[in-house]
Formats: sequence, C-alpha cells, structure tokens
Amino acid sequence: MEYSVAVDTVWVLVATALVFFMQAGFAMVETGFTRAKNAGNIIMKNLMDFSVGTIMFWVVGFSIMFGSDLGGWIGQLDFLSQGTYEHLELGIPKEAFLIFQTVFCATAATIVSGAVAERTKFISYLIFSLIISALIYPIAGHWIWGGGWLAERGFHDFAGSTAVHSIGGWAALMGAWIVGPRIGKYTKDGKSNAIAGHSLTLGALGVFILWFGWFGFNPGSTLSGMDAEGIAHIFVTTNLSAAAAASVTMLVTWFKYGKPDVSITLNGALGGLVAITAGTDAVGAGSAAVIGALTGVVIVYAIEFIDKVLKIDDPVGAIGVHGVCGALGTI
Amino acid sequence: MEYSVAVDTVWVLVATALVFFMQAGFAMVETGFTRAKNAGNIIMKNLMDFSVGTIMFWVVGFSIMFGSDLGGWIGQLDFLSQGTYEHLELGIPKEAFLIFQTVFCATAATIVSGAVAERTKFISYLIFSLIISALIYPIAGHWIWGGGWLAERGFHDFAGSTAVHSIGGWAALMGAWIVGPRIGKYTKDGKSNAIAGHSLTLGALGVFILWFGWFGFNPGSTLSGMDAEGIAHIFVTTNLSAAAAASVTMLVTWFKYGKPDVSITLNGALGGLVAITAGTDAVGAGSAAVIGALTGVVIVYAIEFIDKVLKIDDPVGAIGVHGVCGALGTI
Amino acid sequence: MEYSVAVDTVWVLVATALVFFMQAGFAMVETGFTRAKNAGNIIMKNLMDFSVGTIMFWVVGFSIMFGSDLGGWIGQLDFLSQGTYEHLELGIPKEAFLIFQTVFCATAATIVSGAVAERTKFISYLIFSLIISALIYPIAGHWIWGGGWLAERGFHDFAGSTAVHSIGGWAALMGAWIVGPRIGKYTKDGKSNAIAGHSLTLGALGVFILWFGWFGFNPGSTLSGMDAEGIAHIFVTTNLSAAAAASVTMLVTWFKYGKPDVSITLNGALGGLVAITAGTDAVGAGSAAVIGALTGVVIVYAIEFIDKVLKIDDPVGAIGVHGVCGALGTI
Repeated sequence: MEYSVAVDTVWVLVATALVFFMQAGFAMVETGFTRAKNAGNIIMKNLMDFSVGTIMFWVVGFSIMFGSDLGGWIGQLDFLSQGTYEHLELGIPKEAFLIFQTVFCATAATIVSGAVAERTKFISYLIFSLIISALIYPIAGHWIWGGGWLAERGFHDFAGSTAVHSIGGWAALMGAWIVGPRIGKYTKDGKSNAIAGHSLTLGALGVFILWFGWFGFNPGSTLSGMDAEGIAHIFVTTNLSAAAAASVTMLVTWFKYGKPDVSITLNGALGGLVAITAGTDAVGAGSAAVIGALTGVVIVYAIEFIDKVLKIDDPVGAIGVHGVCGALGTI
Repeated sequence: MEYSVAVDTVWVLVATALVFFMQAGFAMVETGFTRAKNAGNIIMKNLMDFSVGTIMFWVVGFSIMFGSDLGGWIGQLDFLSQGTYEHLELGIPKEAFLIFQTVFCATAATIVSGAVAERTKFISYLIFSLIISALIYPIAGHWIWGGGWLAERGFHDFAGSTAVHSIGGWAALMGAWIVGPRIGKYTKDGKSNAIAGHSLTLGALGVFILWFGWFGFNPGSTLSGMDAEGIAHIFVTTNLSAAAAASVTMLVTWFKYGKPDVSITLNGALGGLVAITAGTDAVGAGSAAVIGALTGVVIVYAIEFIDKVLKIDDPVGAIGVHGVCGALGTI
Repeated sequence: MEYSVAVDTVWVLVATALVFFMQAGFAMVETGFTRAKNAGNIIMKNLMDFSVGTIMFWVVGFSIMFGSDLGGWIGQLDFLSQGTYEHLELGIPKEAFLIFQTVFCATAATIVSGAVAERTKFISYLIFSLIISALIYPIAGHWIWGGGWLAERGFHDFAGSTAVHSIGGWAALMGAWIVGPRIGKYTKDGKSNAIAGHSLTLGALGVFILWFGWFGFNPGSTLSGMDAEGIAHIFVTTNLSAAAAASVTMLVTWFKYGKPDVSITLNGALGGLVAITAGTDAVGAGSAAVIGALTGVVIVYAIEFIDKVLKIDDPVGAIGVHGVCGALGTI
C-alpha cells in the first residue's frame, strides 16, 4: 500500500511537470505562427493565463469541479481548497491531485489565447482567463469528471478530449468570433489573406514540446504508476495517433496544395494528440493509428472551413485542433 | 527497504534531469534579454560553467561540501569523490546524490553569467566558474547543508534559496560591480539607459523552462519519492508562489509604468520561484501565495534600485531575482 | 514483484518521454546550424522521420529487430507488433518496451537529416526514413540487441553508441556523399567555404535538449528503475563524459583557431554524449571523463577531416558526432 501511493504520486507529479511544460509549447506555437511584433503580447497572455488560472483554480475552481456534487451541476465550494476530499477516494495525496488538475485547467485556458491572438486587448483576455479558470472549466469539468450529470450517464472522456480540449476549442471559437478578424485578414469581397507567422522553427519547437508534454497529459490521467500495462498502452496509442495524423496531413496537403504544408502538418500532429486523448486508454494500437489518420484528413478541411467559410480568423488553428479534433476524439 | 531505495533514486534522478535542463532555461533567458550580437558569447559561458563546474565539483567540490566536517568550516577533501560518504546516511546511492548536487552547483555558477553578460572576457568568466564550483559554492554549501556551523545552528534552507540562489545572486552582484556597466548603459550625468534584449520569446521560453526545472529543484530536494505528501505539497507551494509573484508583478508594473511590463513580469515569476525555495516544504499553500505576492512587489523595486540607485548594470535582473528574492525567501 | 514492474515501467516511460524530446533537440541543432531559409524544410523532415518512423517501426521494424531470431540475421516478422514477445523475458509490459525502442529507432533515423540538410529533396528523404525505420535500423539492431550474430559473440553496446549513433552516423555519411555538397560549399579548386548557421542560440538550445534527453537515453536502457546503483552511475558517467568533452573541445579550438569556437564546442558536448553511450554502465567515473576528454580532441579533427579532406559537406557535423564518436565509444 505505502509503496503504491509513492509510485502513483511520483508518476502523477512527473506528469504534472510535463503538462506544465505544455505552457511553453503553446507559447512557442502561438508566437511562432504569428507576427514578431506581437510576441510580447502573446507571451504575456500565456504567462498570465497560467498564473491567474493557478490562483483562481486553487481559490475556487478545484472545489467547484471536485467538491461534493450538488444536484449534478456543481461541486460544493471550498475556499482555498482546504478540504480533505475524501469522497474522491484518491490513491494519492490530495495536493498531488490538486496540482495535476491545476495544470489541466491551465491547458484549457491557454488554448484560447492562440485563436484570439494579435487583436485582443490584454485586459479583456485577463478577465476571460479569470472566468474560464474559476468557473467555465470547473463547471464543465464537474459534469464530466466530478460526478456531475454527464459522468452519471457514463460519458467516457479519459484524459480530456472534451473536458479540456473541446471546451478550450469552443471557447476559442466564441472568442475569435467575438473579437473579429485581424485587420487585413479578409478583403472587402470576403477573400481570406494568409498572414504568415514569423518563425516556423519556434512553431515546430512548440509542437515538439506539446507532444512531449502529452506523455504526461494522457498517461498521467491514470493517476497511477502502478498501472504499468495501462500507462505503457497509453504511451503507444498517444504516439501512434500523433504520428499517423502528421503523416496523413502531410500527404493531404501535398495532394491538395502541390507541396507538403509545414504549418498545417504541425497542426495535424497536434490534432492527432487531441483526438486520441478521450480514448487513449480504451482503444487498441490499430484503432489509435486509424483515429490519427482520420484526424489528419479532417484537420486540413476543418482549418479551411473555419477560415474560408465561417470567416473566423484563428491565427494558429486552435479551433480546428482543439475544438474539432477534440469532438472527433470523443465520438 | 529495497523498493524505497528504488523509488527515491528514480525520483532524485528525474529531478536531476529537470534541474540540468534549467541550464537551457538560463541560456535562453540570458540570450533573449540581451543583444543578438552577444548570443554566441553567452551561450559559450553557459555551456562552460556547467561543463567546467561538473568537472571541478566532482574533482574537489563535492567532498569539500559533504566530506566529514572539519571544525564547522569545510569538509574533508576526497579527490574525485571516491569515498563512501556513509556519514551522510543517504537513503539513495552516493552517485545519485553526487549528480543531484552537481546540477545544483551548476545552477549557482550560472546565475552569475547573466549579471555580467555583454562585457565580461571569456577567460575571466572561465576562471570564475572554476572557483565558484570548486570552492565558493562547496564551502558555503558545507556551512548550510554539509554539517557546518550554520547547519549546527538550525538554519533552515530547504532547497537552497540561500545556498544556491543567494550565493549565486551575491556573486553576481560582486561580478557586475567589478566588471562595471556596459558601454552606453549610463550617461555621463548618471542616467540609466534601457538596453533592449533581442527576443522576448526566447526569454519567455527560458522562464518556462526554469519553472519546469524548479519542479525538480524543490521537490527533488526531499531526496525521497516515498515522501508522497511532502513532494505533492512542494509542487503546490512552488507553483503558487511563482503564479502569485507573476500576477502581482504584472499589476505593479501596470500601475507604475502605465502598462504591464513583460520582461519584469517574467523576472517576477522567477523571483517567486527563488523566494519559495527555502520554505517550500514548511509553509502552507496560503503562505506560499503570500510569499509569492510579496516577492512580486519587491522584485520591481529591487531591479529599479540596483539599476538606478546602485548603478549596477545587471542585463537580465539576476541580482534582483536570485540575490534579493533568495534572501527574502530565507527570512 | 508487482512493485518492481511498476517502478521499472515508470522509469522506462519517463526515459521514453525524454528520448522523444531529443527530436526537438535535433530539430533545433539542425535549424540553428543552417540557414534560416531552409528552416521549414528541415523542420518537416524532422517531424516526418519521427512520424513515418513510428508507423514503420510498429508495422514491421519492431518484430524484425526483436522477433524470434532466424539464423542470427533477422527476427521473425510480426505485422503490427501484435505478438507477446515472451522470449525477450522482459520485466516490463511489452508496450513499454515497444515505445522505448520506437523513440530509439527515430533517433537513428533523424541523425541523417542534419548531414544531408539544405539540399535533399523531401521525397527522397521521406523514402529514406521509411527504409531506415523499417529495415536498416531493425536489422542492424537485431544483430546487436535482438539475439543476432553480434549479440551472440558478446558485442557490448549498452545504450547504442553503435546500434543507434554509429548506424545513424554512417547512414549520414552515405547520404551526404550521395547528395553531394551544397552549392557554394566548395570552390572550383576544392577550398571549403564555411556556410554560417543562422542561430547559435537555437543550436545551443538543441544541444541542451539533447543532453537532457540523454538522461533518458542512457539510464533508461537499463529498462529498470529498481537498479538504483546502476542508473545513478550511468547519470554520473554520461554527464562527466559530456562535460569533459565540451571542456576539452573548447580548449583545443582555442589553441587551434586562436579563440574558442562555439559551434564546434557544442558538437564536442554531443560527441562526448555519443562516445560514452556504449560503455556508460561499465566504465568508472574517471574513465568516463577520459573518454569524454579524448572525444573532445577527436571531434575537432574528425569534423575538419570530413570537411577538408574527404570533402563531404555535413552542415551540422552529424557524421563526426555520431559516426566517429559512436565508433570511438564502442572501441
């Protein structure tokens, strides 16, 4: 018993560190895929959504998400997360669970910053970060993971295709729709202009960091290092889905545009990671590769649809990656 | 027993890898916050202080720090660290402790390179790295952690606010004072010119890497993965202090300068990490947030005081972050 | 028993994540040491050799490498790696071993991309990645680690100086020889022109990431976190070799060229990591420092010999680092 608590806790905390590091990945993807002049602004938003999110989730979010269920809708508020949370029957210390959930919450919050990049006021974004960390994410998370109405109905979302990525993605859609496109993005007659990012290298670094961090995100969600078969399987399915998605996206862009598109392919890899997140524990390796391959096709058309048909300006493709692929994975 | 040794060793080695990676963080912070033309020079110093530091700490430093105590001042010299070090009563293999301490030593050494950046000769810096790794850090470390006179008096510095960061920070102060300011930094009538760094993005990447590495630095210092409650608590306090510091620094710069200052806020996050390091195991989550918040205020004025009043030119704010916040944390 | 499986699996999976992250290191080294205009192309190759490699190794490579031995030359093909692989007598789940080996395979494949950078067609590189991941690496790996003829003769290559790095390095040599030098690299009378990379900072970041990843690569190869003494020793020897190599390379370039050369010194650190990889478990700390120091001398002359005498254009020094230092380490 004592040993298993230690092994599980070590596992969850290593995973926590990896998921935290995804913040660096998001920051690099978002600065790399946008213009150099906006780097400072984007960096600040990324730093702040994590910092403010950490505080808000600790102050109220954690208990709203995991406190004793009140009618299927919300958890019992517990200011500063001071309760024992024995009803969760955790195999690890409460604080290990708290910090793991904190970095998850921050992931959902930060997804939005990419979609609204280059034209959102800092103060607006800050207020938004407060709200998503304190309320939106915890409430939706309570429904799925905290014993709420979706959880009661057997909704399966292992590591958060919906709870984290889709929520982040749909919030990103709302955000990008509300703030409108960047100046010069669409011409008067509705044509979409590509606004090139300033560094594919930083964007790629970000994608590699995110992929690396996903090895904490998905297998950490077992909350158990003792589950050796489980965590090994999750590593395999996570990696296969991302690899298949990147390969297929590369091929699709090659056929569609005449040469492989680097930035869409990078987004393909991320899409594959998002899509496998819901079923990473339950599907076999073959299915994971198929999920990734399908995602690799869908992401290309999803990004185009959002840009050209909906005319929603998403500088880094966050809505397609997190919203669409997250939904796809959950289905 | 056997299992606990394995769990503890795995934990310490994972932490070692994370603390090693902080070298990349320092390198990115220091190059990002300085001018592009000096990147090669800064990179070389960072690479060398770690490389030379590793060798010197292994050859003499480790035994000076952790060898049998000689009169409270110094450890018994043991060339090439070949002894058994049974008097330390470690629960992990000696070599696990050696490598963990090696990366700690390198952290202290590298702090200085930022403060003296852009005007120090490589040969001078190299000699300095030799001395701090072989003598200064091990001797001061012996006083605090190696059974020396401060340790005997019950001085509490859990993971090194003083032993690593303050020592690094004060050595940085000495260094920056000795080498003098960069050309053009101060006008004839004593006004300070800001010399802009060339990449906020790289600076921010560095800060995220350092924050990530701190999840090895602080919880690794338990030397025990079996201490599940302890390491989980340290994750929470470390993260809360950094988040609170970053949030408060952002607000202070907003009120003081009319808009949030990105690079000072990044330094605020680092200050929060440094300040919590001494008490990370002992204080509660609420106190950690308060420590971080206080640091977030202090760092703004400390950087200004060092720059404008002392007229000491510290291109990356290392003295304020490590010296001042390290001292603050220890109090 | 049960606990040891968990500790070993956690260890191998953490190591897997670190080795995966080396892909980011290679990508940064290769883009940093080459021209900005080729960044997208290089990024795409790095992403694809990992993605395609993951798929191919899973589909056929793993079984060719680790399937039941057929006559000392090749393993029994097992489409999609679905077998139980009980003959391997692993102490960890098969899938943990599969994913660890997958990231190793990808390391061998990606080494080549640096050597052939800036003038190889994407389609050619893609086909090459397919072949090395599906056939070359698995077959050579079978000989050394899979029970093949070299393994039977007691060939010692602990973590892959030969199996991964030399094979990657010699494939890189073949590749660079076949594609020929970049336009403008050699003048008509055979003089070699240096073609400067565009970012030492990114190159250095890559080296730090690779060094960090090596703390998974070497100690992960024990496949056992229970082997506390072993993994701690491997951390020490790995780090000492790299540190000694970097220090010595710095000195050699200083004497030879009048001032320390940053990019060769960065390659020196990598050479030290490659060279220690074969014997990291077996040699003492002192020998590790000597191996590193020797490598630090050899790498300078190897890079010059390949460039000036063989007139093979290797933009990032991959042949010297992986081929020569890998061979040196194995001897």
